[in-house]
Amino acid sequence: MKSPYCYLDNAATSFPKPANVAREMRRCMDYYCGNAGRGSHKLSLLAANKIYECREEICGLINAPAPENIVFVPSCSYGLNLIIKGILKQGDHVLISDMEHNSVFRPISQLANDGKISFDTFSALKNPIKNDEEILKSIEKKLRNNTRLLICTHQSNICSFSLPIDKIGELCKKNNVLFALDVAQSIGHYPVDMQKSNINYISAPGHKGLYGAQGSAFVAINSKNLLDPLIEGGNGIYSLESKMPDFLPERHEVGTLPLPSIVGLLEGIRAVKLRTIEEISNHERQLFAYLRDELMNIDGVSVYMSECEGNTLSFNMKNISAERVAEFFDKENICVRAGFHCSALGHRSLGTDESGTVRVSFGIFNSKKDIDKVILVLNSKLAK
Amino acid sequence: MKSPYCYLDNAATSFPKPANVAREMRRCMDYYCGNAGRGSHKLSLLAANKIYECREEICGLINAPAPENIVFVPSCSYGLNLIIKGILKQGDHVLISDMEHNSVFRPISQLANDGKISFDTFSALKNPIKNDEEILKSIEKKLRNNTRLLICTHQSNICSFSLPIDKIGELCKKNNVLFALDVAQSIGHYPVDMQKSNINYISAPGHKGLYGAQGSAFVAINSKNLLDPLIEGGNGIYSLESKMPDFLPERHEVGTLPLPSIVGLLEGIRAVKLRTIEEISNHERQLFAYLRDELMNIDGVSVYMSECEGNTLSFNMKNISAERVAEFFDKENICVRAGFHCSALGHRSLGTDESGTVRVSFGIFNSKKDIDKVILVLNSKLAK
Repeated sequence: MKSPYCYLDNAATSFPKPANVAREMRRCMDYYCGNAGRGSHKLSLLAANKIYECREEICGLINAPAPENIVFVPSCSYGLNLIIKGILKQGDHVLISDMEHNSVFRPISQLANDGKISFDTFSALKNPIKNDEEILKSIEKKLRNNTRLLICTHQSNICSFSLPIDKIGELCKKNNVLFALDVAQSIGHYPVDMQKSNINYISAPGHKGLYGAQGSAFVAINSKNLLDPLIEGGNGIYSLESKMPDFLPERHEVGTLPLPSIVGLLEGIRAVKLRTIEEISNHERQLFAYLRDELMNIDGVSVYMSECEGNTLSFNMKNISAERVAEFFDKENICVRAGFHCSALGHRSLGTDESGTVRVSFGIFNSKKDIDKVILVLNSKLAK
Repeated sequence: MKSPYCYLDNAATSFPKPANVAREMRRCMDYYCGNAGRGSHKLSLLAANKIYECREEICGLINAPAPENIVFVPSCSYGLNLIIKGILKQGDHVLISDMEHNSVFRPISQLANDGKISFDTFSALKNPIKNDEEILKSIEKKLRNNTRLLICTHQSNICSFSLPIDKIGELCKKNNVLFALDVAQSIGHYPVDMQKSNINYISAPGHKGLYGAQGSAFVAINSKNLLDPLIEGGNGIYSLESKMPDFLPERHEVGTLPLPSIVGLLEGIRAVKLRTIEEISNHERQLFAYLRDELMNIDGVSVYMSECEGNTLSFNMKNISAERVAEFFDKENICVRAGFHCSALGHRSLGTDESGTVRVSFGIFNSKKDIDKVILVLNSKLAK
């Protein structure tokens, strides 16, 4: 599929998608779009089988305990809310990082405002950037007797800075604290191993680094701790009971699952696995390094966390707002995101809570040619 | 699109879909699958425009106050949870009908079990079936000073019995009780007019009578009463704030919206409007009457609520379980749902909480030929 766009907003949603994703979604719509778990006829079973196939594929991707431990949710934000509100009880204490997306920060803030929980923020991104040992110390210092959960993002959505999740997982395990990870910006870009890293809960979008459609996302559970349901309703299980079942995944899958999106996610994961995450990661680091080095040759450009190579690069230009830079890009059909990236904490930590940033984020379909276009526009239209 | 199936499970999800639905979803995946509200580049704006177009189309369909009052949600069940949990405060009293789906019954039961609210069930479907006046009297008898909400389904999902929503809306208005309607089984099959019927909240699936994909659904709001958010997170609005905005629809739209599904819904609604709801309703009533009359000629067949003509017909056969009947149908590629239909209350009211039912549900693509197949199988394989 040829696109007229130079798309560099993959941290918002990946585009284009691998050809097999849209193709299989179309096949689903045309040939097997039944309602899984709502009957025993062939179309319902075909739907159920596809959904199970996707659970298996995800389970392998992140080394979850079993396919049943994969719960489909409508969005990564929903999944984070499910984890946060499903775990926390009155009086619990929570730790989050200073680079959280609003999908962690806002529900935690709301629970704290309601007087249900208390929370602390540990230092990581905040200037000067902390190294692994300093981050761990910052966590340890803020641990309390009633700390029940540490929830944080794997990678910032403003830049490519990521947290040392193996070490954090170990620390949580040692201190008997549940560890939940928001992999919105890392899944598909970096390996994630739930069991090796002692991660109890993961929430992941399907439409970013896994190249599915928007509307596909999942929570993976690696804990015997039963989450309270976030919503209740029908799911074809124990229909005559007034309560949700106490087993996975049905406890949390209420209403009809979005089959076409789940089928798209299945194909997206297959495309990622085929390319291999290692190869994707290397590719994106190379693009990052190339763009960073070119940007740093331009007068008045600041690159944030320039030493952290990955799929997301934020910068600003002197004397011209992030929004204005993005407008110039848009005129040339270059898609980037400018402003604030739904991360109040991250922007404060980076010192960009007044300016926002221009965010360039890569995916598997980007090449050096895309970056050359960016640099050309900057040099010819914007740089002095 | 030719399907080998005789699909009669449209109350679970409609199938097949009108050709324009899958076609536009594919076009979206291939050409404009950006993230709405997450940037100002062309692909993000194309996505935002399509989403707004869908809000307008829905607003016209149900006579909601404004496109902004349409909130996209992942499922009708989610929407019902949002309404229920967004409205109700400690000590509130709620009225529901005796035919509710578990997507109303379970969240209400949970809140009652938690000691937050109390609720009562008014009689409608329960044998002997009530007429409009009896239903209204049953509601009036159960109204209390602290009754804050009446939430009910428009039509049962087991049979075609529906509630007199105009009169219920009037009664609620008179008594200063909020009125919320679950239109899971009626939207697209019957006209719904929020303002005329004094409905404050509607929750609707996109994948049933509106012929969109699973994963599309909406809540429509016709009230100044601000719902508490069910989940919090990022949505590109006021990114530096810790709270959700207090305006619609952004207050309740957290995380990335499922663009391909919303585009599918838009096209589904267009197909329904083209055919006209009146015509669809007549078509389905005719199919109902034809099937009912044929079934009643077969010894040992009971049809439930046989006088209520509509898109959903439940029956049972003497001496053979509902599940076994459905198995025979499935062998002939006839898709129906058998057993319990996620409605504990409805089955109790109908007296089918031990047997379940065989449910046949129609859509725009069914014809008398489909019913002839059903009758042929019943007569040749099952009837004595």
